[in-house]
Amino acid sequence: MKVVGHFINGETCTPKGRMQDVYNPATGEAEKLVLLASKATVNDAIVSAQQAFPQWRNTPVSKRARIMFKFKSLLEEHAEEITALIGAEHGKISHDAAGELQRGIENVEFACGAPQLLKGEHSKNVGPSIDSWSEFQPLGVVAGITPFNFPAMVPLWMFPLAIVCGNTFVLKPSERDPSCAIFLAKLLKEAGLPDGVFNVVNGDKEAVDQILDDERIKAVSFVGSTPIAEYIYSKANANGKRCQALGGAKNHAIVMPDADIDNAVNQLLGAAFGSSGERCMALSVVVAVGDEVADKIVDKMQTAMKGLKVGAFDDASNDFGPLITLQHKEKVEGYITSAAEQGANVVVDGRSPTVEGYETGFFLGATLIDNVTPEMTSYKAEIFGPVLQVMRVESMQQAMQLIDEHEYGNGTCIFTRDGEAARYFSDNIQVGMVGINVPLPVPVSYHSFGGWKRSLFGDLHAYGPDGVRFYTKRKTITQRWPSSGVREGVSFSFPS
Amino acid sequence: MKVVGHFINGETCTPKGRMQDVYNPATGEAEKLVLLASKATVNDAIVSAQQAFPQWRNTPVSKRARIMFKFKSLLEEHAEEITALIGAEHGKISHDAAGELQRGIENVEFACGAPQLLKGEHSKNVGPSIDSWSEFQPLGVVAGITPFNFPAMVPLWMFPLAIVCGNTFVLKPSERDPSCAIFLAKLLKEAGLPDGVFNVVNGDKEAVDQILDDERIKAVSFVGSTPIAEYIYSKANANGKRCQALGGAKNHAIVMPDADIDNAVNQLLGAAFGSSGERCMALSVVVAVGDEVADKIVDKMQTAMKGLKVGAFDDASNDFGPLITLQHKEKVEGYITSAAEQGANVVVDGRSPTVEGYETGFFLGATLIDNVTPEMTSYKAEIFGPVLQVMRVESMQQAMQLIDEHEYGNGTCIFTRDGEAARYFSDNIQVGMVGINVPLPVPVSYHSFGGWKRSLFGDLHAYGPDGVRFYTKRKTITQRWPSSGVREGVSFSFPS
Amino acid sequence: MKVVGHFINGETCTPKGRMQDVYNPATGEAEKLVLLASKATVNDAIVSAQQAFPQWRNTPVSKRARIMFKFKSLLEEHAEEITALIGAEHGKISHDAAGELQRGIENVEFACGAPQLLKGEHSKNVGPSIDSWSEFQPLGVVAGITPFNFPAMVPLWMFPLAIVCGNTFVLKPSERDPSCAIFLAKLLKEAGLPDGVFNVVNGDKEAVDQILDDERIKAVSFVGSTPIAEYIYSKANANGKRCQALGGAKNHAIVMPDADIDNAVNQLLGAAFGSSGERCMALSVVVAVGDEVADKIVDKMQTAMKGLKVGAFDDASNDFGPLITLQHKEKVEGYITSAAEQGANVVVDGRSPTVEGYETGFFLGATLIDNVTPEMTSYKAEIFGPVLQVMRVESMQQAMQLIDEHEYGNGTCIFTRDGEAARYFSDNIQVGMVGINVPLPVPVSYHSFGGWKRSLFGDLHAYGPDGVRFYTKRKTITQRWPSSGVREGVSFSFPS
Amino acid sequence: MKVVGHFINGETCTPKGRMQDVYNPATGEAEKLVLLASKATVNDAIVSAQQAFPQWRNTPVSKRARIMFKFKSLLEEHAEEITALIGAEHGKISHDAAGELQRGIENVEFACGAPQLLKGEHSKNVGPSIDSWSEFQPLGVVAGITPFNFPAMVPLWMFPLAIVCGNTFVLKPSERDPSCAIFLAKLLKEAGLPDGVFNVVNGDKEAVDQILDDERIKAVSFVGSTPIAEYIYSKANANGKRCQALGGAKNHAIVMPDADIDNAVNQLLGAAFGSSGERCMALSVVVAVGDEVADKIVDKMQTAMKGLKVGAFDDASNDFGPLITLQHKEKVEGYITSAAEQGANVVVDGRSPTVEGYETGFFLGATLIDNVTPEMTSYKAEIFGPVLQVMRVESMQQAMQLIDEHEYGNGTCIFTRDGEAARYFSDNIQVGMVGINVPLPVPVSYHSFGGWKRSLFGDLHAYGPDGVRFYTKRKTITQRWPSSGVREGVSFSFPS
Repeated sequence: MKVVGHFINGETCTPKGRMQDVYNPATGEAEKLVLLASKATVNDAIVSAQQAFPQWRNTPVSKRARIMFKFKSLLEEHAEEITALIGAEHGKISHDAAGELQRGIENVEFACGAPQLLKGEHSKNVGPSIDSWSEFQPLGVVAGITPFNFPAMVPLWMFPLAIVCGNTFVLKPSERDPSCAIFLAKLLKEAGLPDGVFNVVNGDKEAVDQILDDERIKAVSFVGSTPIAEYIYSKANANGKRCQALGGAKNHAIVMPDADIDNAVNQLLGAAFGSSGERCMALSVVVAVGDEVADKIVDKMQTAMKGLKVGAFDDASNDFGPLITLQHKEKVEGYITSAAEQGANVVVDGRSPTVEGYETGFFLGATLIDNVTPEMTSYKAEIFGPVLQVMRVESMQQAMQLIDEHEYGNGTCIFTRDGEAARYFSDNIQVGMVGINVPLPVPVSYHSFGGWKRSLFGDLHAYGPDGVRFYTKRKTITQRWPSSGVREGVSFSFPS
Repeated sequence: MKVVGHFINGETCTPKGRMQDVYNPATGEAEKLVLLASKATVNDAIVSAQQAFPQWRNTPVSKRARIMFKFKSLLEEHAEEITALIGAEHGKISHDAAGELQRGIENVEFACGAPQLLKGEHSKNVGPSIDSWSEFQPLGVVAGITPFNFPAMVPLWMFPLAIVCGNTFVLKPSERDPSCAIFLAKLLKEAGLPDGVFNVVNGDKEAVDQILDDERIKAVSFVGSTPIAEYIYSKANANGKRCQALGGAKNHAIVMPDADIDNAVNQLLGAAFGSSGERCMALSVVVAVGDEVADKIVDKMQTAMKGLKVGAFDDASNDFGPLITLQHKEKVEGYITSAAEQGANVVVDGRSPTVEGYETGFFLGATLIDNVTPEMTSYKAEIFGPVLQVMRVESMQQAMQLIDEHEYGNGTCIFTRDGEAARYFSDNIQVGMVGINVPLPVPVSYHSFGGWKRSLFGDLHAYGPDGVRFYTKRKTITQRWPSSGVREGVSFSFPS
Repeated sequence: MKVVGHFINGETCTPKGRMQDVYNPATGEAEKLVLLASKATVNDAIVSAQQAFPQWRNTPVSKRARIMFKFKSLLEEHAEEITALIGAEHGKISHDAAGELQRGIENVEFACGAPQLLKGEHSKNVGPSIDSWSEFQPLGVVAGITPFNFPAMVPLWMFPLAIVCGNTFVLKPSERDPSCAIFLAKLLKEAGLPDGVFNVVNGDKEAVDQILDDERIKAVSFVGSTPIAEYIYSKANANGKRCQALGGAKNHAIVMPDADIDNAVNQLLGAAFGSSGERCMALSVVVAVGDEVADKIVDKMQTAMKGLKVGAFDDASNDFGPLITLQHKEKVEGYITSAAEQGANVVVDGRSPTVEGYETGFFLGATLIDNVTPEMTSYKAEIFGPVLQVMRVESMQQAMQLIDEHEYGNGTCIFTRDGEAARYFSDNIQVGMVGINVPLPVPVSYHSFGGWKRSLFGDLHAYGPDGVRFYTKRKTITQRWPSSGVREGVSFSFPS
Repeated sequence: MKVVGHFINGETCTPKGRMQDVYNPATGEAEKLVLLASKATVNDAIVSAQQAFPQWRNTPVSKRARIMFKFKSLLEEHAEEITALIGAEHGKISHDAAGELQRGIENVEFACGAPQLLKGEHSKNVGPSIDSWSEFQPLGVVAGITPFNFPAMVPLWMFPLAIVCGNTFVLKPSERDPSCAIFLAKLLKEAGLPDGVFNVVNGDKEAVDQILDDERIKAVSFVGSTPIAEYIYSKANANGKRCQALGGAKNHAIVMPDADIDNAVNQLLGAAFGSSGERCMALSVVVAVGDEVADKIVDKMQTAMKGLKVGAFDDASNDFGPLITLQHKEKVEGYITSAAEQGANVVVDGRSPTVEGYETGFFLGATLIDNVTPEMTSYKAEIFGPVLQVMRVESMQQAMQLIDEHEYGNGTCIFTRDGEAARYFSDNIQVGMVGINVPLPVPVSYHSFGGWKRSLFGDLHAYGPDGVRFYTKRKTITQRWPSSGVREGVSFSFPS
């Protein structure tokens, strides 16, 4: 079986050590093995990054950016290989993987603007003949720990910006779908990145802990579930590192009585079930204001869901694919069961779908649950599956209260035509990313991504302008030149 | 004896509870008592701040700024009272206290620019007819915990900016010199600040822990020693708060062979002994490049130090005052003793100075120690007293290595005329605030203050642009309006 | 009779020369005389400004800003004197003059943020060991030429920002109401501004032409009518000066069928008749979408206008005052007559109002004209009087076409509840300042003021961020230090 | 003979009309013909640009940027063809043309950052529930008129930024070397640019005047000589267009006594003679402080100049090529003659060089003239040829006075090691682009290019951040939503 190794100092490597199966979720079979890095391997990666740092830091920023320009071209050129790698290990359909990759490429495009983004602030005459300026210098070696659900995009949120800012990087991708990261590393090398600037170690908690413990690593970016995010954040901080750790979500959409319901349903469909709901920005709860609205939504959604097709990644006519593992599939099914048991109404039940030719795959069909209430287990948890829950409230204020009282504060959305409702909602809701008639309000790459409450640990959001600030440290210089130097000396030296 | 209480919800209050002496360090006598807040008192302050938040947040930013304009005027009007309060409890000479206050006022001036500083980023057409923008919203209730050495300036680094950004504030000043903060609170009220927006609780670890534990407090700014900074930072983080914690320092000045030595000595004098060296930006180590430079510095410094006058705060002819407590004075004396024991040369010994009329004050004269080496206790520690140590190296590279290997990375400075030396130094040195011929490179209020290494815990520096980012959270809105609304409706309604 | 002179080099002066009457428009009587500067007097002012420039330019920016802080306090302290001066010469009611002054003070507040606003852009390593930065340096002597309708606010749009950027200034205010500018000059001096930095010359075309011809003046800001703006702009440009010249306006409000009509009427009332309509942002045309909307507006407006009270500036119960001159009053009356003659319907006729005790004042009552069409003289011209015209269209598209085809593009507004209509309007309309349910969309002081089409000549808008760019010129420095300087020399000098 | 035509609406075209010879300056022979556009042809281009504008303006900015990413790749891919085209018509050596192209590509890279560069300013709560933001909208159809000396780079300063900001473009390149622009247009089309967004018209004054007269063109960027720049600027302004017009230069380098003379001479060599001195940033005057410095420079320069090789563009071992035309060559020779006649010392005389095989080419060898004084014709004029003049002064102050009194203020440079001298020079010199030990201080693409005095007409510099501001107009929206909309309506509709 193919063994997926690491990428250190410009080379792939497969040192002996522990290994783990990599599944094709559509067939339910392990088709590859992934190496799990030992401490020594992680150390090799750090050493490599550490050695590459001084020269990379001193490379003019436009030259660093130019490698990102080339990297973007290569990503576009190799898009099909990348989406195939994603599909085979994650299971998402090719068009969905292409969308993920495109979003990731947009982060590379943003990184290409580094010369502008890294400008410091310059002040003349802060005192008599005294100038002062602030520079934004790279941190050194930084690390990224990324989740299974976006094997291309989430790494691309991190390393292009970190690298273009002058840092060197160690990436620990998810061991569920490890191949994409290695492929990206090779493209970076082809784009001209010096060896050691970007390294990939595959692994599990042993590798993660080594990253968190090693003092040569100056910062860690993480995306995953909230409990792990919290662990990463507190351990990184205790070890003197800068950290941003993005966790879970429960994204609600409010549908107001004046909304265009057909449009709302249409958009909710993709936002709820796309990528099997395995997205931290998935829209998993609809809050209908008024029973009339709720009834319409449930009715139209039920109809629309009939057209959804679940299947393997390489058939582009499929809408979404399997879940990532058998265990996860069973967990999601458990949430559906619990909702039913706790009084909700399972309107469309996606359990046990038929996917011909893929009977052992980890599939779960789109599921719609009505009359969900705040106390239910399925409401409290982040399900991370193709399950849309409907809640019914009597006012916008009640809808907003629901959202504000939830543990998470990642994304949210309102459907309305009314300028005032939209403004009130976006101003007051305790959520970091807000959509007005936009169901998946993922900020574009030149803004920054970040939830509030327990969806993000750290001061600065991911990518965009906050990403630049995260991957740099401020240095402020204050300068006064002593007088009677060469200038005045000169006039003495050459009397007329 | 006068009792210094708290300031909560627009009123001073003196609830029953534990108390502690407040000394006049020049006489060595306790002249006031300060109340130490119980958990209940801290809770009162938080409740007050919490209740004031919603309305304050919605107050237009220009109105919030206008209160800061008025506050600045009042600070200037009451400058003498403030410097007298500082002198009586901290001991610093009136001109030094006036300098501190002026630096603090400059932070208020920066806060007056809030309307400009709080501008978000607006993007048109991020997709077809889709707009997106990022807002910087206030956090809620935030807290500041401040040290004894700048009872006016350090609080003014924090609360004006926090408040003008729309937050409400709880300040826990040092219990050594608690009166200044209460006075500032009264001026803010006079300036028109609504009750509850700014609150002061005096106290000790009990108050600090309550601040760190209470989940209604969203962020904590701290300035103090590194061990406490680390404690504050990790506890605040564990409790889900944003935190920036500024710690200790050991600021080195490199003197190059081409420097103007007279000028350097002149500047080092104030930078080393001003405020008795109780400044986190005090210049406490001179690194002379070459014995020739070192000999000149020691010689000239020795002469210059003869003119220094130590005494009580209210005689403006004094250069600096007593240390803050008897214990601290004894600790500093201990460092001098240890240096001598470990082989250094105490060139000028400031122990047991004569200050007529103030024989029981906590005075220590200016001290110069030559031939200090990296292993000495007095080199490793932050002394925080009027002690200047001289080290001798043979090259600039050695000097820089010394600095980079020290635990702290707050401030540093180089004396040279040479553009290349200055550029190399400022680019490469692992220190956050760098002076070129400027011995105290404290960033002006419109840049940000922050050390590197173990001198600061957190991503963002204090005050200035980083302060604005620290006291706000990013929210990103993505907006698309459904078509066929009133606009198109209208054209249907009124056919020609 | 009192003679209003000039303010040059820190002193008022009244050199012999031509003079002109200054009227009290409420009584219709000349109550003062104003001196009209000769070329020699303008030259004196320029010389004074020229001499003050080098030292002012080198004054640290925070010190320059601090004078603006003090100036703001003085403006607030002397607000009543200022509004009285405005009222006596311009005629606007005290509450309106106070509003004008407040808007002007907001520009001073913005200028106080100069240290932040003047930050340059700093780039490290644009090449190997090469740094580059851009500074924004002052221009030198700059001038402002301001209109009668805002004798305090429009000068305050200009000189605080120009001065705080390091320029020195010559102001030529309107000779109709010259006293306010002299008063502001005295307050600036009291605030600590060095003599010569700010100078006022009263005068007419002779003074204006001297300003435009003198090569020592580097930039001119102008606000007035479009023909004069065009003259100023082309002459200033021909003479090598930077120029921004703001001209006339014809501001339309679209009222959509879904608007809250009561609210719209209420807001239009002040926007149309406030300050007798003598504002470049006055709302002078209502475009009703649909006859139903139009009928309601005309009906409700008619009723509301009955409550309006016209009179002298010192009775705060008045809503608005007289026009500026008899000639101007007759001109406005002529527009009303022409509208009637050309087929419009004069619903409320404000000609020949009764103002007891002020029978000879230049008063004109609020006037409402319905069924106005694009061909009418009263539609094409900027009336600059208390005349509101109603137009009727059948669709929003028609309304927008009207606006886009008009010569001017200063301000405009839409009344609607619909997010999509608002977005479409603000995106596409060819007007520089757009209101959504805001009838007078004057940008706040931290944004910039500027119309499109023939309402503004120049690249950069007035005040705010564009104002800073206008009053500074960019200088870009690229710096590389030769190696083998003192740094490496040192290591040779001290071999181990 | 090959005829070079126009590029309009996505197609090359060669309508009948006037034509002019295009020379190969190395052979001195006309090898092509260029069409000179009639008014009708210019009109076609404008119509094409006008029609393409609405859709291009509404294309999301990231999509517009993506075409620039592709364009950059294509420029790199076709670099050799472009440099060959430049060489054959302009005469510059291939390595010099490659450098020009690289600089141009850097402007495309900057343009790729458009999503970040076009962000507007967003202010929440400028009043109660009122928000305001400024957008930067494209102008419409804009034009560029570019000089012969950089047929690739100067157009690339303009159109990538203009286009990515949402404008459509008409380029009128120099009729001396017209082929490059057409080639760039084809690459843009290949990169995916919609037809009509970018158009090229070749021509002479007739085309220029049509561009300046046509009211559909909203802005003009020009680079050329000062008299033409002044003509373009005043005519464009008179016709209501925005304009930036860059003119001539006379760039001085000060060499201080502490400078590394070998290094200075080495750098001056390329800066003075590169591209035959036909650069607006060419270093054409050396101001030596002290005769000792001057003698050294003249001596070492003389030696170094012996190694220079002049010849045709396609031999990369040549240092520089011919001048652009015979007339221009004779004009430059005239300056040398006049200098000699007026008392200067022609140390190295480059007149009548021998270039084997190219006897009829427009060649002129590198020329060094010593003892030049301010009154000489050769000092006052911009020579635009391979002529370096040496002036001798006794102090830095005298050197700076020379520079400040010259008509032009484009670029300048100082050679020194001294921080203070460099700071004083860069702060005070009246020149827009300043080098510290950098002889050609052309700002990098993410800063902006612009001289002072009569080297630039207009407020905003070319390319970089100023370029973005030049190609956009500010629109400020102020928005308040009426209350009692759907939000409150809802709570009435659904009472409990």
